[in-house]
Formats: sequence, structure tokens, C-alpha cells
Amino acid sequence: MAKTKVLLLGAGFIADIHLESYQRFVPDAEVVGVYTRNGEKAAAFASKHGLEQSFDDLEKAIVTSGCEVVDICLPNFLHHQAVLTAAKHGKHVIIEKPFAMTLEQADEMIEVCDKAGLKLMYAEELCFAPKYERVRQLVHEGALGDLYHLRQCEKHSGPHSDWFYDVNLSGGGAMMDMGCHGIAWFRWMLGGRPKAISVQAHMMTVMHKGRTKGEDDSVVIVEFENGAIGVAENSWAKLGGMDDSVEVFGTGGVVYADLFRGNAAVTYSEEGYGYAMEKAGNSKGWTFTIFEEAFNQGYPQELHHFIECVRENKTPKVTGEDGRAVLEIMLAAYESAGTGRKVALPFHPKVAKPIDLWLDQRPS
Amino acid sequence: MAKTKVLLLGAGFIADIHLESYQRFVPDAEVVGVYTRNGEKAAAFASKHGLEQSFDDLEKAIVTSGCEVVDICLPNFLHHQAVLTAAKHGKHVIIEKPFAMTLEQADEMIEVCDKAGLKLMYAEELCFAPKYERVRQLVHEGALGDLYHLRQCEKHSGPHSDWFYDVNLSGGGAMMDMGCHGIAWFRWMLGGRPKAISVQAHMMTVMHKGRTKGEDDSVVIVEFENGAIGVAENSWAKLGGMDDSVEVFGTGGVVYADLFRGNAAVTYSEEGYGYAMEKAGNSKGWTFTIFEEAFNQGYPQELHHFIECVRENKTPKVTGEDGRAVLEIMLAAYESAGTGRKVALPFHPKVAKPIDLWLDQRPS
Amino acid sequence: MAKTKVLLLGAGFIADIHLESYQRFVPDAEVVGVYTRNGEKAAAFASKHGLEQSFDDLEKAIVTSGCEVVDICLPNFLHHQAVLTAAKHGKHVIIEKPFAMTLEQADEMIEVCDKAGLKLMYAEELCFAPKYERVRQLVHEGALGDLYHLRQCEKHSGPHSDWFYDVNLSGGGAMMDMGCHGIAWFRWMLGGRPKAISVQAHMMTVMHKGRTKGEDDSVVIVEFENGAIGVAENSWAKLGGMDDSVEVFGTGGVVYADLFRGNAAVTYSEEGYGYAMEKAGNSKGWTFTIFEEAFNQGYPQELHHFIECVRENKTPKVTGEDGRAVLEIMLAAYESAGTGRKVALPFHPKVAKPIDLWLDQRPS
Amino acid sequence: MAKTKVLLLGAGFIADIHLESYQRFVPDAEVVGVYTRNGEKAAAFASKHGLEQSFDDLEKAIVTSGCEVVDICLPNFLHHQAVLTAAKHGKHVIIEKPFAMTLEQADEMIEVCDKAGLKLMYAEELCFAPKYERVRQLVHEGALGDLYHLRQCEKHSGPHSDWFYDVNLSGGGAMMDMGCHGIAWFRWMLGGRPKAISVQAHMMTVMHKGRTKGEDDSVVIVEFENGAIGVAENSWAKLGGMDDSVEVFGTGGVVYADLFRGNAAVTYSEEGYGYAMEKAGNSKGWTFTIFEEAFNQGYPQELHHFIECVRENKTPKVTGEDGRAVLEIMLAAYESAGTGRKVALPFHPKVAKPIDLWLDQRPS
Repeated sequence: MAKTKVLLLGAGFIADIHLESYQRFVPDAEVVGVYTRNGEKAAAFASKHGLEQSFDDLEKAIVTSGCEVVDICLPNFLHHQAVLTAAKHGKHVIIEKPFAMTLEQADEMIEVCDKAGLKLMYAEELCFAPKYERVRQLVHEGALGDLYHLRQCEKHSGPHSDWFYDVNLSGGGAMMDMGCHGIAWFRWMLGGRPKAISVQAHMMTVMHKGRTKGEDDSVVIVEFENGAIGVAENSWAKLGGMDDSVEVFGTGGVVYADLFRGNAAVTYSEEGYGYAMEKAGNSKGWTFTIFEEAFNQGYPQELHHFIECVRENKTPKVTGEDGRAVLEIMLAAYESAGTGRKVALPFHPKVAKPIDLWLDQRPS
Repeated sequence: MAKTKVLLLGAGFIADIHLESYQRFVPDAEVVGVYTRNGEKAAAFASKHGLEQSFDDLEKAIVTSGCEVVDICLPNFLHHQAVLTAAKHGKHVIIEKPFAMTLEQADEMIEVCDKAGLKLMYAEELCFAPKYERVRQLVHEGALGDLYHLRQCEKHSGPHSDWFYDVNLSGGGAMMDMGCHGIAWFRWMLGGRPKAISVQAHMMTVMHKGRTKGEDDSVVIVEFENGAIGVAENSWAKLGGMDDSVEVFGTGGVVYADLFRGNAAVTYSEEGYGYAMEKAGNSKGWTFTIFEEAFNQGYPQELHHFIECVRENKTPKVTGEDGRAVLEIMLAAYESAGTGRKVALPFHPKVAKPIDLWLDQRPS
Repeated sequence: MAKTKVLLLGAGFIADIHLESYQRFVPDAEVVGVYTRNGEKAAAFASKHGLEQSFDDLEKAIVTSGCEVVDICLPNFLHHQAVLTAAKHGKHVIIEKPFAMTLEQADEMIEVCDKAGLKLMYAEELCFAPKYERVRQLVHEGALGDLYHLRQCEKHSGPHSDWFYDVNLSGGGAMMDMGCHGIAWFRWMLGGRPKAISVQAHMMTVMHKGRTKGEDDSVVIVEFENGAIGVAENSWAKLGGMDDSVEVFGTGGVVYADLFRGNAAVTYSEEGYGYAMEKAGNSKGWTFTIFEEAFNQGYPQELHHFIECVRENKTPKVTGEDGRAVLEIMLAAYESAGTGRKVALPFHPKVAKPIDLWLDQRPS
Repeated sequence: MAKTKVLLLGAGFIADIHLESYQRFVPDAEVVGVYTRNGEKAAAFASKHGLEQSFDDLEKAIVTSGCEVVDICLPNFLHHQAVLTAAKHGKHVIIEKPFAMTLEQADEMIEVCDKAGLKLMYAEELCFAPKYERVRQLVHEGALGDLYHLRQCEKHSGPHSDWFYDVNLSGGGAMMDMGCHGIAWFRWMLGGRPKAISVQAHMMTVMHKGRTKGEDDSVVIVEFENGAIGVAENSWAKLGGMDDSVEVFGTGGVVYADLFRGNAAVTYSEEGYGYAMEKAGNSKGWTFTIFEEAFNQGYPQELHHFIECVRENKTPKVTGEDGRAVLEIMLAAYESAGTGRKVALPFHPKVAKPIDLWLDQRPS
């Protein structure tokens, strides 16, 4: 059986990770080309990674690359159009977080893929991160009794690309960028696609005030229908490298797991060295040296799963509906941060982008 | 100079810790007696610890024991009366958390001591815990830039004594019991007795539903006047032993510190052994073995400081005003948990006990 | 290009790990059958893992299975004959540790493969364990200056199969079983296949006296030509689960890395659960929960590398010569433990099995 | 009862620690003066710490200071004379490690104190370090079954004072300086003053070759009469701050404990700060921030114990005989490192200083 042909949309940080993951860990897939708006950047990416084709025209890329799968690693504001174009041409879609800028977009994205009989996977890698999946298995075995409180942190010192800081392009700040992980993971851990019933949130801009209107530090409390809560803490203002860690509390036990410092070799170097972990900064002195960063975060496993879904006609474990549900909770979080009120779900505000609910309503 | 004579009010878990702390680490103090409502218990405590006097009558104890200092380790609902009685007879007071059941009580307690020219210290041991104090020193040196986010967790599987579960005696659950620590510590770390301007909170009862109306799991977000926030997570539903840990985020760095697992020896025992740490449960298999538990939590340092204040006529670092400020924030937290709204401070509700603000208002 | 056909020799603990590694991570390989001396066990293994062929006749398996590669996961005393048979029939060989029982065997094994133009890889997975390889990369970058002291521990509570305890079948105890890892890794870390110049060792039998003559606790100090030392600590008497950890000391820095506790989620469970980590025992209470155990130890990477060597006619990174060098150092270690003397290398004793050098010489 | 008057001999790193320990934690003691060979240094030390007397004449200090106890924190080569002088004038003695340069000295030191009816304590603080003492208590409870293997590491980047590097003044390098701790602690943990029966050792000079003839990295394996071993690893070549850690292996369990990194707050600072831990170097980036360093190492507890012994006429837990036993094992370690042979005890070489056994015998 021939390899499944994948077109990569985007040539930034996350596209690099997807490409490495395909090439090292997904033997049934072949990345046949890359698109990004800047043709030179696309060509450079293709050249660096040995891809035969590069494109700066989205539709042409989708139509002519010979792909069966479109893997969307584009800035947030381009997600909607990219899915619509892929679906129009009969391509299966896997899409990076966050799913969309509005619920209307989300609904349309889901609908077009559904009508065309196409797979649509929401690429939440934490649902595949092996350490966290090990934890989920324990929970499934009953090791922790009933879960009542989850915590997920994802924090670093700020994103790699400028567009993240422009809320018109990103739709929001650190919570929009990283809170989506925690929120998706709470739903995944609790199982059965639990309904969120309310959200409380606090947001602020601490470190990047001159650069963005977006929040760079947030706390979100999501309450689910069975009473369990998830607390997502996210930041672009946290120095010293990436944090991705969880705490799981059940009536029969607890688990603490950490993907970065908790897996790392612990190094002291007078001279420093090339790279310790994502956003680590200087590597002189003590550092936490991470290894197999993509694997430990679940990217290869996620992509492997999607390619299998496409080849064997299975339903992805994480779908557009999950992406939409996360987006709805994030909308409620911005609303709560803006109004100071606990926001009940379902919540379907009419806004151009999530962060408006905070920016437009917060007390001066 | 003679030793300062201390009368201990209370003979429970915390009284044991205070007594050990005085005897081992506060050479200038002498515990001359103990009072508790149950005379047999008082006598047993005195006998066990070599105290000469025991009492079951509060006023008599204060008047006849010869004490200069009254150390209040009584259940919460007895705090107010105990301070009033001590002050009436001219005794300096150190009082365990939480300060009082109502702001009216708090104000009166402060006033009577003030008028009588007596020292009144609020015994927040986290302001003396040596690891946390080391962290505070770093912050003071500028190692972390400006603090913008603090987190403190204090969690275990539930209190030792029945009265904690009766909200009429305790005034509240896990947050009232332990959230006071985090809230006091946020103020202490930020320095200069910062004003809290708002509080958001979520509370629930998970594990002890049959036993208490009080919350046994809570998340409280306190916003201070300079924009920094403190997130206090507290639980009586957390198995596996005590957690007391902090995270400190500043614009120039971060610190993680943990008083229990983070100090412990890591032990594997097939047979088990007597005691691993507070609330650890079974000691077979792996355990985190804590040492010098009282010292590491700051109790001896706290009591040493107060005795020094008494002897050298200094102002305690943590006062009744601090205890009152913590109480006000806790009241706002119950109100927020009850109403789902962010509560602005100053906040002065008229209630018999803090938890009423949650119990009476929360949606069914 | 067709998949490379692999015949697995052995159906024990390590064969399971190799099989899982091939199936999940080595898409260019196909395991076509399994041999073990017990035909029923072979059939059961084949059935469990979906292999089409099972054998209880070694030569027949090699000749008729259609394999191009023989992967030897047999008890130590069968290594020599298995390699000779494989080479006789023109099969490439990858062989688990320890390489052989004697240097004479080792030399013959190397020679027959060499003469037949066959690949012979010594399957030292620590040379592929991703965390340790990350550490090696740092060292290569100069992050630690010059290495002068390495430590590797590999310890658990004793092997899975009875033959390990019979020194006639195993050739030695915990050091022969696990010290080979540390010793191979010292050579790999120092680079350039450094000559060992002397060995000091201490061995004892602590926990399994009734079951084996073999040592179940050992310390080995290997001195290399540049003056650097490696200290290998190995045990079959260490409770609480597997330990595989390293310390690397250089003139410019240090690294600490741990493959089990150092990667694990930290779990507390009242009920317990199925499996925490290799040899963990009971999973009630606190446990260190490991994930992707084979991947984190380097097995898939090791097998992937060998299949690539076969397919692309490359030289394996770890060869029969390396296996022999490790064996020589282990012989010197038994000699040192037996005589109390530092043993200089080259060292070529005439013994039937390594442990005789300790058993026959040690003072009663 | 009046305070016990202590004269401090020495004004270096360890004298500072002793002084702080007395002043903060030993209320029954009063340091009445300090002696060091350099009068200006003595005066500066006295002034800094508020001591009334300083001396540059040893005998005069002992005779005129009014002391009852002499606390010896002098360089190694001065230990013998200091004890003799103290005993001559009827002073109780507590003496820092290592006990003496030769067994002849040790015997005389013990004898003179014994004859004069004076207390002589060997100040091994690890016998009082609260985390390690907690571990010892577990062992005593039977939590680990029978101990068979102990490991103690003490490593840093090199001593504070020049005399350590001159082997005529120190008697040896890193092992003499720090191996004494591990060796004393092995005996203490095993209990009952167990006889050491043999020693194997490896030593080398790695980082400080231009500065000292002494070893700056060592591994020592001590075998005790019941078969248990202790492995002491010591270094002056280990960057990144102090390491003091232990591993305890028994037939019923294991313990890992670490006094520095294992107690520390974990800090990331862009600007750095004053002090992270002993020998930590630069404090920018990640550091392990230790707190209550003296307390956690056991100094106050050790001194408190000795003062109690003096006041209540008790026998110190660690005596001159213990110091002598440690010295004998260190002599055997140098002999083993020099000859490559396991050295049996009792071992009573006639040398001017321990390291001669290594320097004079090792192969070039």
C-alpha cells in the first residue's frame, strides 16, 4: 500500500515538529510539499527538509501537490479558510490548535468536512503525550478513584512568531495559545466528552505590554457536569524554559507528571551548550536538558494516529467537535475575565475573536 | 533575665507542635501550663510533656498560671473569647489561624489588645518557614524582578479533629483551615501589606460529603493592588500525605519550593515504618520521609520571634491586622464561590461565619 | 524495497521487548518467526504476537524461516553456538548482552561473522537510550570539558528467569547481567573505543544466597587509558523497582540522568494498579510510573539502527569487538573481586566462565 | 546554671559555621573568644561576631580566656598540638575532622583527654544531620531490613583555604577532607562501632594538578565485619555546588537522601542573586537554593549535644575513638590507592601523613 501523501500548510515552529515527526515516526506517510504565504520561506523549508514541492498559493498547493491529507500549521486566523479550501478539494484535514477564531467558523469547518466525508482531526498532542497517556491509563484502571480536580500548566516566555502578539491574527494571548491544551486535556482525561457547565477566569498582561494587547498570564477554572474541575494556568511570562505539567486528583489517589523538567537530565555546564529545551534561554550553569522533545509531547503519536485513521477509515480520537468545545470554553474564559462573572455554558457570543470579550469589557 | 512564661490554650495537634517548638528551640520561653475544655485531656497533655499545671477553666488558667503570654491553639470558634479573656488579664497573645469567625470579632480582638498595650501576633508560620523565607530573601534581592503571580498549595486528606468538620465550630472547610496560609503568605511575599482588590473562588465538597457541609477542595484567586495575583489551592481530599508548596513568578525569574516532598528522603520499605509525614497513611512501599517537620514549617522560628517581641518590646512581624486582612479575603472567597462573581474589597458582610456566604447563596 | 526478515531467538522478557520494538518502531523489519528450546513456549509466543512461524530446532529455524537477520535473545550460555549457526547459514546477527562466556568464544564469534561478510552487532541499548544519547551529545559539544569520572547504576530485585541464577548457564551474577551495560556505556561515552587499563571490584551475595552462587551486588571501578574512571554499581538485591541512572563528571560540568524514577509520573494510589515499572512490586501507595519503557531504554532505536545497517550496508555503531571488550573488563572484575587486587588489562584468563575467577579465588 | 564557655580555635569557613550554630541554636553555650595564628584575622573575626576576646597565642588563649571547652576548627596539622594543649589545661575538647595526621597522634590525643577526665568529641556533623538521622531512625525501626550497601558522596569544586592544597598541612586531598564524613557515617549507620575489615580505593588528581599533590577525586570501598560495604565518593573537581547525598540499601528496602539539591528551592533568575549554596558559583539561570545550610548539615545539633555532654557529664555519641577508626580506614584507602591492593584492617603504617601511602607507592 502506497504511502499517504501529506501537504504541510505552514513553515514555522510547529511545522518543523510535524515534519520531523512524520519523517522519523510515521512510515506510512510522505510529506510531498509545503505551503506558506511567503514563497521564499516555503522554498527554504522544502529545501532544508528535502521536500520536492513548495508553494505560496494555498489552493494551488492543495490541488496540484497530489496530497490526500492537508496538515494545517498556519496562524490561527487562517485556519478557517484553509479547512474550507482543503475540503472543497476533497482532502482529509488535521489542524493545529486553536481550532478557529469563532464558533461560526468552527461549525462551518466541521460541516464542510462532514458533508464531504472527510476526516477532520483536531491535533491536540497532549491526548497522545506518552507520559500523560500513561496517567490516563492508570485512571482508567481505577487507580485514582473518581477524578475531581485536574490542573494543567503550560508556560513559557513568549511565542516564536510575531503574529501571536497581534490579537487580530491570533484571536487571543497565552490562554488562546496554550490554554487550549489544558482544556482539551481535561475533557480527554474525564472521558466521554463531558459537558463543561461553567468557567471562571483571570487574565492579565505582565511582560509583553508593549508588544501585545493579549493576556500573557491566565488562570481558568472549568467546571464539568459531574462536578470535577480543571484549572488551566498559562503564561507567556514565565522564564527559564517550557513548563508542561499536570496534577490529577481523585478520590483514590493523585498523580503528578511533568513533560519537561520531569523528564530532563540535570546538567551543569560552565561553557553552556546548544540547546537545553524549548525557550530555555542561556544554557550556562544548571539546565534541565530535555530529549526527544516531540515524542514526549505526543506529536509523532498524534500524526501516526491520524494517518492510520485515513488509511483504515477510522474516526480520529480527537475531532473538530472537540476543537469547537475547547473554543467555546475559551470564549467563556475571556467573557469571565472581562466581566468578573462565572460564565455558564452553552455560551455562544457573537464576536470577531475571543479576546474581544475580555478587552472590550474589563474595567479600566 | 527569667524565662517568659507561656500558657498554652489547646491540647490538640497544633498544641503539640507549639510545645515541641518551645521546648527545643525557644530557650527564653517556658510553658507553664495547658488549658483545654476537657480536664482529663489537659492533664494528660501536661503529664506527657512535663508541664506542671493543667486547667479546664479558661479564665482561671489565665489568671492563676503565672503566664505572661497566652498561646491560643483552640478551635476557631473559641478564638475571640480567648483573646478577650487574655487581654482582660493583661496577657500578650499569639493566636493560631484563622484569626476569627467574623470581622467584628477580629476588630474587637485587635482593639482590646491595642488598648491594653499588649502584643498580639497572628501565628502564620509560613512567614517563618525557612525555605520560603529563603525564597522571600531572593525576591528582596531582586532575583525575580517584579512578582506578578504566586501560587500556594496546602492539601491533605482531612483534619485530625472532629470540630473541623462542624462548620459552626470551624466557620468553613479546607479553605478556612488552610487557605489562610496561602493568603497570608501572598501578602507577606508581596511586602508592604498590599491591599487585595478582588477575589474569585471555586469550592466544592468531594470526599467528606457525609461528614461536613464545608468545602473540601477550593481554588481562590486573589488580585492585589499592584496587579499581582495569588492562587491558593487547598484540599482535604488529597491523599498521600501533606502538600505545602509554592510557585513564585516574577518578571525576572521563577522559584519552585516544596516543604514536604521537596525536602524528603525518598524511601522504599517492604515492612513499612512508624511515620513518614503528616497524613501520609501507610508507610509500606515508597514514601517521602520528612524530617524536622515543625522546623521546616517555621513553627519554632515563629514562636521564637514572638517571645523576642515580648521580651524586647518589638512589634511582631505578623499582627492581628494581618489576621483580619486574611479573614476579609476569605470572606470574599466564600462570597465569590457562592455567587460566581468576582468580589471587590473592602468587603464587610454581616454573617455569623464565613462559609454561610457560600452555603446560603450557591445555586442548588 | 521489501522488509528485512528477522528471526527471533528466545521467547523471554527481552524477546518481548525486541518484538514490541520491531512492530512499533522499525517499519523496515518484519519478524518472521521465533525459536526457543521449548516448542510450546515458542508456539505460544508466536501466537501471542501474531508471528507465523515458531521453532524448537535452532538450525532448522535459521535455515527455513526465510530470515536475513538473526536476533539473539537467548540465555548467555547459548550465545556462542547461536552465532556460529547463524553465520554458517549466512545470516546477519544482532546479539543481546553479555556477548559470550569466554574470550575464546568471543573471538570465534567475531571471526566467523567477519569471514562470512556478515554484520554482527552487540545490542547495547544504552548506546541508544535517548536521554543518555542527549547527554553524550552535550559532552561532544564540550559542555562538560573533559570527562574524568562516570557512574552508572543498574539495579533491581533479581531476574525474571531461573537460568540467571545458575552460574553455569549465566556465567555470573548481577555484574555479568547488568554491569555489562555500564561498562559498555563508559566506553561509548568516552568515545574512540578507549582502552581499559585496570579494574578494581567488590562483589557479594546478599539476598539470593539460597538460590545462586552468583554475586547479587557489585561495585566495579574501571580505569581507562586517559585516566578517566567508570564506576559501575549493579545489584539484584535492590527493592522498589528498576534503577538505571548515570552521573557524568567533567572538568567543565556535570550531568545527572535517570531513566526510570527520573522520567516517571509520581503516583499515589490507594487501590494500586497494574504496572508501575520493571520489578516495581506492589503498586499501592506511592509509585514511580514509567512510560514508554522500551523506547526510553533505547531498544527500538538500537534495532532500527541495525536494520538500517543491514539494508544500507553500514557498520553498526556497537560491534562484536565492543562486546568482547566489555567481556574482558568483566573477567578482570571477577578476578579483582576474587584476589583483592587491581587487575591490569589486557587480561586473558583461561576459564570456563567469568565468575569462576571470583568463586575459586576469594578468601573463605 | 551559667552558660558553658567555649573558646573557638580557628577563624575560617568552619569556625564561622560553628559560631553561627552556637549563637542561634545552643543557648547553654557562650563563645568567649577566638584564636587563630594571625592576630589580625582573629581580631576581625571577634569583631564581626561580637566576641570579646581574640588571640594569636594558642596556650594563652586556652589559659586566659576563661573557657571550659575548646572547639578546634584549625587546619589538620594543628589538631594534635591543640588537643594536647587543651588537655594540659583541663579543657573539654570538640574537634573537627579529620581527627589527626597519624594514628600515633590520635592515640596520644585520646589518651591525654582520657587521663585528664576530659570529654573529647569528634565533630562528625553527619551523625547529627536531621535528614540523615531520620533515615537512621527508619533503619533502626527495621524499615530496610539488614543494611548491606551504603553510599555517601561529598563533592564540590575545591576548598576555600590554601592550606588544604598543601599535603604537608592537610595530610591528603579530597578523601582526607571529605571521605572522613562518609566513612564515619557508614560506621554510625551500621551501629555498634563495627569493625572495618578491608578497604579498596582509587584516587586521582584531575582539576587541581597545578596546585596540589593531593587527590581531588576518589572512590573508597570499605568492607565491614558483617559483610556490609560503604562506598565513599569524594571530589574537589565537581562543579555546580556542593553535593552531600546518601543511598542506603537493605534487604527490606532502600532510601535516597540528599542534603543540598534534595532540600533546595529551585530557582531561575535572570539577574542572579547573592548566594545559592556552598560553592555554587554563578547564580544566574537555574540554581538550587539551599536554606538553613548549617542546620541541615547537623552542626547546631552536634554542638548542642556536646555542650549537653559537658554540662550533664555524658559521653559524646562520637568520640576520639571514632575519629581514630576513620583515620585508620583513610590510611588503608591511601595504601590501597597506592598499591592497587585491597588492604586488610587493622592497618597501622608508620607514615608522617596519610597521603604518603599513595604518593610514594603509586605506579608512575
